[in-house]
Amino acid sequence: MFMRQKKILIAQGGGPTMVINKSLVGIVEQSKKQKYKSIGAYNGVNGIINSKFINLDKISQEKLNIISSTPGAALGSTRDKPDEEYCTKILEIIKKNKIDKFFYIGGNDSSDSLRIISEKSNEINYPLQCIHVPKTIDNDLVLNDHTPGFGSASKYVASVFAGINLDVKSLPGVYIGVVMGRHAGFLTASSSLLKKNHLDGPNFIYLPECDFDVEYFLSDVENFYRKYGRCIIAVSEGIHDANGVLIVEKLKKINEKDSHGNVQLSGSGSLGDYLSNLIKTQLGIKRVRADTLGYMQRSFLGFASEIDQKEAHLIGKDAVKYSSKMNKSFSICIKERKLNSLLPYSFQTNVSELVDIAGKTKLLHASMINQAKNNINKRFLDYALPLIGKQLPDFSSLI
Amino acid sequence: MFMRQKKILIAQGGGPTMVINKSLVGIVEQSKKQKYKSIGAYNGVNGIINSKFINLDKISQEKLNIISSTPGAALGSTRDKPDEEYCTKILEIIKKNKIDKFFYIGGNDSSDSLRIISEKSNEINYPLQCIHVPKTIDNDLVLNDHTPGFGSASKYVASVFAGINLDVKSLPGVYIGVVMGRHAGFLTASSSLLKKNHLDGPNFIYLPECDFDVEYFLSDVENFYRKYGRCIIAVSEGIHDANGVLIVEKLKKINEKDSHGNVQLSGSGSLGDYLSNLIKTQLGIKRVRADTLGYMQRSFLGFASEIDQKEAHLIGKDAVKYSSKMNKSFSICIKERKLNSLLPYSFQTNVSELVDIAGKTKLLHASMINQAKNNINKRFLDYALPLIGKQLPDFSSLI
Repeated sequence: MFMRQKKILIAQGGGPTMVINKSLVGIVEQSKKQKYKSIGAYNGVNGIINSKFINLDKISQEKLNIISSTPGAALGSTRDKPDEEYCTKILEIIKKNKIDKFFYIGGNDSSDSLRIISEKSNEINYPLQCIHVPKTIDNDLVLNDHTPGFGSASKYVASVFAGINLDVKSLPGVYIGVVMGRHAGFLTASSSLLKKNHLDGPNFIYLPECDFDVEYFLSDVENFYRKYGRCIIAVSEGIHDANGVLIVEKLKKINEKDSHGNVQLSGSGSLGDYLSNLIKTQLGIKRVRADTLGYMQRSFLGFASEIDQKEAHLIGKDAVKYSSKMNKSFSICIKERKLNSLLPYSFQTNVSELVDIAGKTKLLHASMINQAKNNINKRFLDYALPLIGKQLPDFSSLI
Repeated sequence: MFMRQKKILIAQGGGPTMVINKSLVGIVEQSKKQKYKSIGAYNGVNGIINSKFINLDKISQEKLNIISSTPGAALGSTRDKPDEEYCTKILEIIKKNKIDKFFYIGGNDSSDSLRIISEKSNEINYPLQCIHVPKTIDNDLVLNDHTPGFGSASKYVASVFAGINLDVKSLPGVYIGVVMGRHAGFLTASSSLLKKNHLDGPNFIYLPECDFDVEYFLSDVENFYRKYGRCIIAVSEGIHDANGVLIVEKLKKINEKDSHGNVQLSGSGSLGDYLSNLIKTQLGIKRVRADTLGYMQRSFLGFASEIDQKEAHLIGKDAVKYSSKMNKSFSICIKERKLNSLLPYSFQTNVSELVDIAGKTKLLHASMINQAKNNINKRFLDYALPLIGKQLPDFSSLI
């Protein structure tokens, strides 16, 4: 009996990460093993409706290896958030090209697009398997212990603050580092991962999970600075007041919104400068510096976490394996771990329904935040430390 | 005949780098070999006048090894710029402690402090050898081919822009990265070191060596963006108009000045935000992002250039060796290379008079800048590429 060779389509959506191409290559490699034909869409769903495809089977293993450790989305990405009509168009093209499985590597929004496409394909009885492969530096996908991309971004942020701690010890003052994360504070919390003792920076961490109160903030900084002559602060770009209004939104005369209707948080230094000026004017401290960590958090070259790379690769491969065992759409997940610093770190994949992931947001659990809501606690360290890998040098100082 | 054991004093001044402790450890190790007694001053010259010293001979080799790859100044640094009275005090303490040689690891300002101290010691006939050991990420010391600290900062900036290029290819728009460098554009120029082809970012580089004209800038960006749908810009924090007025200075209501009377350039996102708003409002481009690269350029952990580390270590050792051969004050330098991409990279140290280094600033030579003054040319690549080392991964994309 002649079996038609299965055709799979792969696309990448949303903000890229340092390891998103590891998952891409994992899917391609496993598909080769299973004799599938792999096609890539340029620029996510946008490439599908414009029929911009690439035959991924023709890419040499040597080139795949290089691509896999390259940050950024190798196929290009998109911020397009497909509505019903857009999804109907996607499905038409998929049908026309006789695609059996559609792997979409992305975050919240991408999984929601997949959910709609999957529902539509059911409606018209087209046998399409929609498979969501998670990635996001924000680490905010539910039902996932953590997400590929987070470990590397986390390593970058941890390394920035470890270096800044040594820099500010050399030349004391107040330092504010603004970290990415609209709703979830995982990445901001990662600023503390390489602290060696309790006086090391960051001395305070302000998360989007808690309300931000300017008076409390100034009092935290003042007390610490008066005592130790320096203060290092990690603050999430997504901090908001008790009414839920973003501090950044309050600062903006023109609120640029992205194509999902969200206020632009990244790519501007306004929040850091606002907080820095507050400290200068209200507390009379002279040497105050603010850096916004920027797009390097997701795209810095040559610094990915080796654990994150390995997992992103494996999750791509596993997604293909599961797809051949199951005859339905799903999201591949990383199983939740029991947090216990005595147990060795373990990684296992799992599958969930698209509808259980799509459009939902996981936040930093309250049990990982201190009582004063201006720092994280040991539980977060137990959770996040294994994810940044081990290829970081030891460091020491004489002051 | 009994020979009194020579006593050397070591201090670190100015902004730290990723390899400044390599030089410190180089000096300590070589001093041990020559049976000198090594004392460190905390926080540069400030620790001298306050008699805050540490016995460096007691530090284990194991700890020295860890310190040597730690960013930040392990002894602490200072922004104090000693005047005549301050220098007189320094000399008193040095005399009281019977110091024979004073090694000051620093940039322009530190070498000038040394020059004054050395002149004063000559006046009072105190036989003090003042030795300047160069470090600066700005790479702006005259008579040096390059300076320790630059290679690592350069590697960081190159890696940021290589990643950003892949990020902006994934999600097109305009990106501005603001790079450190008050007078010299070496670090900003380094943004181009990992470009693979002429359309890769940064597409334009604006240096403090050239006048910055807003109209030319907007026309550069518009032309490139209209043609290719994206544009990546590297801009120095020190850009100024045709009258020499800093663009940052024009933006500031309150010009915070540092203790040397310089306007604060770093630790604020104002220049990036200003340029980003210009592009949004004048060119009507929607997706424009600006990052200020910040203190990570000099203090990021775990990413130093292995060439820079090796050289910073060697220059510390050589400084001690020269000091025992010569009976006078000096600055140790890195000999200028002949620029020829066919010749293997070579590194040699040399000595100069303090007075020939102190207070002078080296700029990026005109022969390394393109005619339109909005980019660098191959000569800069030949010059800077060997300095960032070889431990960087290859990368590739499908778009």
